[in-house]
Amino acid sequence: MPLRHPQLRADGKLAHLLTIEGLPAAMIHRILDVAASFIGVAERDVKKVPLLRGKSVFNLFFENSTRTRTTFEIAAKRLSADVVNLNINTSSANKGESLLDTVDNLAAMHADLFVVRHSQSGAPFLIAEHLNRNYQGRIQVVNAGDGAHGHPTQGLLDMYTIRHFKKSFTELRVAIVGDVLHSRVARSDIHALTTLGVPEVRVIAPETLVPSGVEQLGVHFTTDMKKGLKDVDVVIMLRLQNERMNGALLPSAQEYFKHYGLTREKLALAKPDAIVMHPGPMNRGIEIDSAVADGAQAVILNQVSFGIAVRMAVMSLLVAP
Amino acid sequence: MPLRHPQLRADGKLAHLLTIEGLPAAMIHRILDVAASFIGVAERDVKKVPLLRGKSVFNLFFENSTRTRTTFEIAAKRLSADVVNLNINTSSANKGESLLDTVDNLAAMHADLFVVRHSQSGAPFLIAEHLNRNYQGRIQVVNAGDGAHGHPTQGLLDMYTIRHFKKSFTELRVAIVGDVLHSRVARSDIHALTTLGVPEVRVIAPETLVPSGVEQLGVHFTTDMKKGLKDVDVVIMLRLQNERMNGALLPSAQEYFKHYGLTREKLALAKPDAIVMHPGPMNRGIEIDSAVADGAQAVILNQVSFGIAVRMAVMSLLVAP
Amino acid sequence: MPLRHPQLRADGKLAHLLTIEGLPAAMIHRILDVAASFIGVAERDVKKVPLLRGKSVFNLFFENSTRTRTTFEIAAKRLSADVVNLNINTSSANKGESLLDTVDNLAAMHADLFVVRHSQSGAPFLIAEHLNRNYQGRIQVVNAGDGAHGHPTQGLLDMYTIRHFKKSFTELRVAIVGDVLHSRVARSDIHALTTLGVPEVRVIAPETLVPSGVEQLGVHFTTDMKKGLKDVDVVIMLRLQNERMNGALLPSAQEYFKHYGLTREKLALAKPDAIVMHPGPMNRGIEIDSAVADGAQAVILNQVSFGIAVRMAVMSLLVAP
Repeated sequence: MPLRHPQLRADGKLAHLLTIEGLPAAMIHRILDVAASFIGVAERDVKKVPLLRGKSVFNLFFENSTRTRTTFEIAAKRLSADVVNLNINTSSANKGESLLDTVDNLAAMHADLFVVRHSQSGAPFLIAEHLNRNYQGRIQVVNAGDGAHGHPTQGLLDMYTIRHFKKSFTELRVAIVGDVLHSRVARSDIHALTTLGVPEVRVIAPETLVPSGVEQLGVHFTTDMKKGLKDVDVVIMLRLQNERMNGALLPSAQEYFKHYGLTREKLALAKPDAIVMHPGPMNRGIEIDSAVADGAQAVILNQVSFGIAVRMAVMSLLVAP
Repeated sequence: MPLRHPQLRADGKLAHLLTIEGLPAAMIHRILDVAASFIGVAERDVKKVPLLRGKSVFNLFFENSTRTRTTFEIAAKRLSADVVNLNINTSSANKGESLLDTVDNLAAMHADLFVVRHSQSGAPFLIAEHLNRNYQGRIQVVNAGDGAHGHPTQGLLDMYTIRHFKKSFTELRVAIVGDVLHSRVARSDIHALTTLGVPEVRVIAPETLVPSGVEQLGVHFTTDMKKGLKDVDVVIMLRLQNERMNGALLPSAQEYFKHYGLTREKLALAKPDAIVMHPGPMNRGIEIDSAVADGAQAVILNQVSFGIAVRMAVMSLLVAP
Repeated sequence: MPLRHPQLRADGKLAHLLTIEGLPAAMIHRILDVAASFIGVAERDVKKVPLLRGKSVFNLFFENSTRTRTTFEIAAKRLSADVVNLNINTSSANKGESLLDTVDNLAAMHADLFVVRHSQSGAPFLIAEHLNRNYQGRIQVVNAGDGAHGHPTQGLLDMYTIRHFKKSFTELRVAIVGDVLHSRVARSDIHALTTLGVPEVRVIAPETLVPSGVEQLGVHFTTDMKKGLKDVDVVIMLRLQNERMNGALLPSAQEYFKHYGLTREKLALAKPDAIVMHPGPMNRGIEIDSAVADGAQAVILNQVSFGIAVRMAVMSLLVAP
């Protein structure tokens, strides 16, 4: 049976970043520590370090996401890597080439790192296992989102954000609000929070937007926003996908906002110093009110800034000599 | 009331380049002088200067224009900046994110400069005001074309071209020919020419392709090509948009060429050393005859070369420390 | 009458790379020798050399091909060039600008090298002749595939691969199998093999997929796979284009595989140390069986690696001072 997590080397070091599931707490903290050392780079006059000079990073996007691609592209460029963007919808995939043939082809160009986005869960794992088997660990993979499965750099940047503002994880109450069922971010966050010792993770959502047996992930589930937000330190709002809004799972966007949209009134139930997070892009007036999105407790843009540093950290840990 | 031109700092320096309207003549000349210093860079063996090394330039194109994007991309790369291209049709805009949320997101990645193209007039102003309000002047905007409003770097490169070939503005007669109504170039040029002291600017066009009250911009208007071209020093031809050619505003492309297409015969009415300009892409045989486009008086490709230097000048004035 | 091959300078040096047709054997060997010197670059820690620093390379793709574009982009970046990708379907071509006006425009930006892909045979020749006429040899062209005509860097990398594994060309039997009629690779390879002194080149294909008079190219033609593969040293498989598979030219993909698909059994007819090549992307189970594609005799991924070095060689021979 193949290993479920080809991301760890025999010596315990990170070979790929595929999922937060199974990452030891010490490794998560290590990544966040390295990220902290990159925060300053973005504030320098010359926002570059030469760590990945002459390395070839391929943004291999089988699903379009300008936003996510941009974060990895800018992170790689600030590490001085050579970056090539491949949007594979319009390319070899059309010509019927298999995923692994595409990967082999780019590997033969002496790729150092693949940043992989795919609509199908598990695609980055498949690629990583293939690379481990055939390229002696010379080529690394970062999962930039695979179907509903995970989005580990988003999970890590969320942890960076919480650690930055709350210092420690071990006393926190964290609420995750919204469409947990379809959210790769939610899955990554739940795994990370649990691993880092957060004693109470709550999921707040309508029944139709939660996977069955969600409690087995170690979280408390409630459909009641008021109950769920009571005294939390951190609120992680999830994006409501457009395609859900008028579908069978929800009555309407307006109805959703009434019950689950984060307003000042609902936020007042959380601790006074609670922070509000959102992975973006936001639907203002649907899952979050503008007064909250732009309010003093929102750390949504900090997440983005930290995200660049976290991606630089992951890339440099994987690739830098 | 917000300032109409958030592009000027309190100290009179350039904070953004949004429009030529309101730019003092001294500032236009300053930009052209800096551009002149970059002309030589493109002729060197190594066409690069390190002025923007480690800076992050985002080409934020809400409207597709490979041609314009390329000019800014090459200019930024010759300044050694890191450039990221974002084509927002196919991205967050689809996901319903607001313009300013997109901007905040990229600003949080520590962007230094946004080159903005948008189909709606005023979008770059909105972005610049937002950045001024929220980022203490750390992030700059260049308008790369907003609706029918303006295209200031095109205006500036046109002024560079005229200054290069005619040395001085104060004795010139300049004719602008064609679809002034829909042309952002025409508006930018009229403002620049007037500011720089050109005593006579003529607009030559059919009635249907001129904004009502065009004379209030300080130009002379005529529908008569022969009268309009008489003794001019500079002819600026405008592109006839495909969508106008068979629309209600014009009888046909052939008819247009007959009356307003620049031929050798018509050009002979101008001064013998008159120069012919065009912002490109040209419709040969519609607004301009090939004999003129490729003739000795055409400076159309010089405009393109100067355009790179002008964009380097604008970027370095805005961003370089 | 214009020269058919504007790619050679008066002094016999390479001015452009447009076609393998007419390239002297010595020049092919020279390119392969330079490529050999670049093989090591891709294995270094810093995979870059400064040969094209500050040069502007434009990937001018009038036909989409992410795969080919990527190979040139990575090659140019490893030479430290500034690379701009232009996909012209969605750009000026739509606005009705002529091919040569587009080229002039980019030339005026002080381009150093155009990598041109076009669906029409001869387009890169047209561009090269235009540049020779108007830019005194300052701007070079590499043909990255023009219609069914040619794909010279693919031909050169195939020669590199054969030379690498077989050392010499003068004793070889080479079989080219498949859709020769529509293959630019086949044409390039046949010219190169003949020029380099391969005594026996065989074309194996159904009658419907071979140009009439193919023997006039100096090859032996057979429809019989078994006869054709007998004792060959090199097998070059061609990709069966999707659009042929169910068209009038072929009964079906299954039928094609039965007769012309390369299986272990058929390959056993070749010499025991025969190598198997394919330009990619492969249709596994159609023109090639997976057991062969992944087998010990396949050098398909070596071709890709060598291809980067060959493209670096071509670019540096054309552009480096």
